[in-house]
Amino acid sequence: MEQKHGGDIYRNRIDYDFSVNVNPLGMPDAVKNAAKQAIDRSSHYPDLQAEELRERMAEFFSLDRKQILVTNGAAEGIYLFFQALRPGNVLLVSPCFSEYEAAAAAAGAQCRFYSLKESCDYELDEEFCGYLTEDLDVVFLGNPNNPTGRKIPDPLLKKIRELCRDRDIYLCVDECFLPFTETAGSLIREISEDQKLLIFGAFTKIYAMAGLRLGYLISGNQELLKKIRQCIPPWNTSIPAQRAGIAALEELEYIERTKRMVKTEREYLMKEMRNGLARQVYPSDANFILFRAEENLYHEMIKHKLLIRSCANYRGLTPEHFRIAVRTPKENREFIKIWRRIIWQKH
Amino acid sequence: MEQKHGGDIYRNRIDYDFSVNVNPLGMPDAVKNAAKQAIDRSSHYPDLQAEELRERMAEFFSLDRKQILVTNGAAEGIYLFFQALRPGNVLLVSPCFSEYEAAAAAAGAQCRFYSLKESCDYELDEEFCGYLTEDLDVVFLGNPNNPTGRKIPDPLLKKIRELCRDRDIYLCVDECFLPFTETAGSLIREISEDQKLLIFGAFTKIYAMAGLRLGYLISGNQELLKKIRQCIPPWNTSIPAQRAGIAALEELEYIERTKRMVKTEREYLMKEMRNGLARQVYPSDANFILFRAEENLYHEMIKHKLLIRSCANYRGLTPEHFRIAVRTPKENREFIKIWRRIIWQKH
Repeated sequence: MEQKHGGDIYRNRIDYDFSVNVNPLGMPDAVKNAAKQAIDRSSHYPDLQAEELRERMAEFFSLDRKQILVTNGAAEGIYLFFQALRPGNVLLVSPCFSEYEAAAAAAGAQCRFYSLKESCDYELDEEFCGYLTEDLDVVFLGNPNNPTGRKIPDPLLKKIRELCRDRDIYLCVDECFLPFTETAGSLIREISEDQKLLIFGAFTKIYAMAGLRLGYLISGNQELLKKIRQCIPPWNTSIPAQRAGIAALEELEYIERTKRMVKTEREYLMKEMRNGLARQVYPSDANFILFRAEENLYHEMIKHKLLIRSCANYRGLTPEHFRIAVRTPKENREFIKIWRRIIWQKH
Repeated sequence: MEQKHGGDIYRNRIDYDFSVNVNPLGMPDAVKNAAKQAIDRSSHYPDLQAEELRERMAEFFSLDRKQILVTNGAAEGIYLFFQALRPGNVLLVSPCFSEYEAAAAAAGAQCRFYSLKESCDYELDEEFCGYLTEDLDVVFLGNPNNPTGRKIPDPLLKKIRELCRDRDIYLCVDECFLPFTETAGSLIREISEDQKLLIFGAFTKIYAMAGLRLGYLISGNQELLKKIRQCIPPWNTSIPAQRAGIAALEELEYIERTKRMVKTEREYLMKEMRNGLARQVYPSDANFILFRAEENLYHEMIKHKLLIRSCANYRGLTPEHFRIAVRTPKENREFIKIWRRIIWQKH
């Protein structure tokens, strides 16, 4: 059965999960140990202010800790932002992560959509700027975008920021997948300068701790943060999540290893997929790949106990669109082998 | 430094924490182990639907699992309810758990308050029914109430339910502390009959897993639950919390042991406190005790590395009001000893 999101290993018998975009290296041992030790202290309440975690994050990102809110996954941050602001008009791109629209709608906002062009390989293009009209309250963008894997070109992102600032539009940038990319491009350093800019991020994906839930929201706008803080349920991040987060920030070598592996393996997968497997493989800057194939690929893969992400429920995509995560060398080779076997068996 | 809530062991050097109302027996070993094992699976996303946990809870409470939402602590459930409903007028009692008011205010609601009477030892009385006017949208009650520890008398609760149903008012009952009390009185079984009734509960307190975060919201009103579900960020409960919850439901003997200990120790504490220590000790049905003492007691206790809950920031209470949790026999005797020493030193 297909779900709203990937990762439904709970209602499928799966050996390989390519449907979610978490770090294929798995949770670092030091992070795992920190979380396990934290269980022994979890009869207590978590620190309401997550002070130690925010202090370490402030050092890590060169920010003031007052500019950081920690959330129960990035998803909670997105919902809280919309609940706190209750904006009227929101601009999204299609396709994008479905929770931007769901969170906006839950807070009563109207969403409009800029359609990414297949002819541009779903990269955001300059035409988008024409949609940044004065009646907008919020623009929400993924950088890189999910499920397309495309980063926003730096000069275009700069132009969008300037237009948003001039036209009094909140610019929300979801950087959850940015740590997987080779080049820089985070806007975190700009938040002190730009009161309309918010950054959303997560530990869940880059440190493969999706089951522990830890995300954050960064802004230099204290008035806005105060509004959002009023909507946050107390103790929203668990003790294991806080301790895991603190341990994760030490894992610098792991991040470098991740980036190298993602690059090499993404190239391997794309080359193989373009060699008689997929109908179309779109370029990606991230740790996942969007492609077109025969509609029944999802079900064929499930028969081989391998889960991929059907993109049929994304706005602007079709039942022929799928997304896979870049996994470990062994898993990726298994994926290609299974796909070849599926095609073989049809002949 | 005092905080909005008890349990601030993060900014105080504490040997004994009497400021939070979690089970003094601590997290059961089986629950701890389930949570630790879950860390190893936490590179995955949690089950979006928390299906297994909800199934076990449905058996435990004799409900349909469709009537159960699991939340990141009871606090999240309270916030989500108000965000989803965005009611106009809300009736609370004073004093009560401060997050009812905070969550209502965050969703733009107006709160009014019925003052519990010190002359009734803060027990809810019949006069309350006169406040259930037709312009109300929501009544939110703790049973037992925090920080007073008083249960609502059964006949009065029945009358309140009937009035709410007749006058189209949502009746929210927070039963987080009910499992600590000796007598029954849960309204969970009534929710199928009563579309205006909602029950809030938590694993955090009774199973001493406050740091893991797990609560729930129970209603027979599918339309309302659908609205609330739209406001829930996906993956709101972690894998360790879900697995701990499943393990906790097996702990029947632990609950019986808890109830016995709470009763015996509450009686011990009250007797000692009434014997020349407190100025006034109010009756309690719960695992905590409200009392009056000299204003500086909080600071005197901190000097002895013992944390109690100052109730100065509760509506309707004063800097002379404090709350302590009922802890283990050893801790309770230490608490009394320290208090005696404080009084001695003054003479």
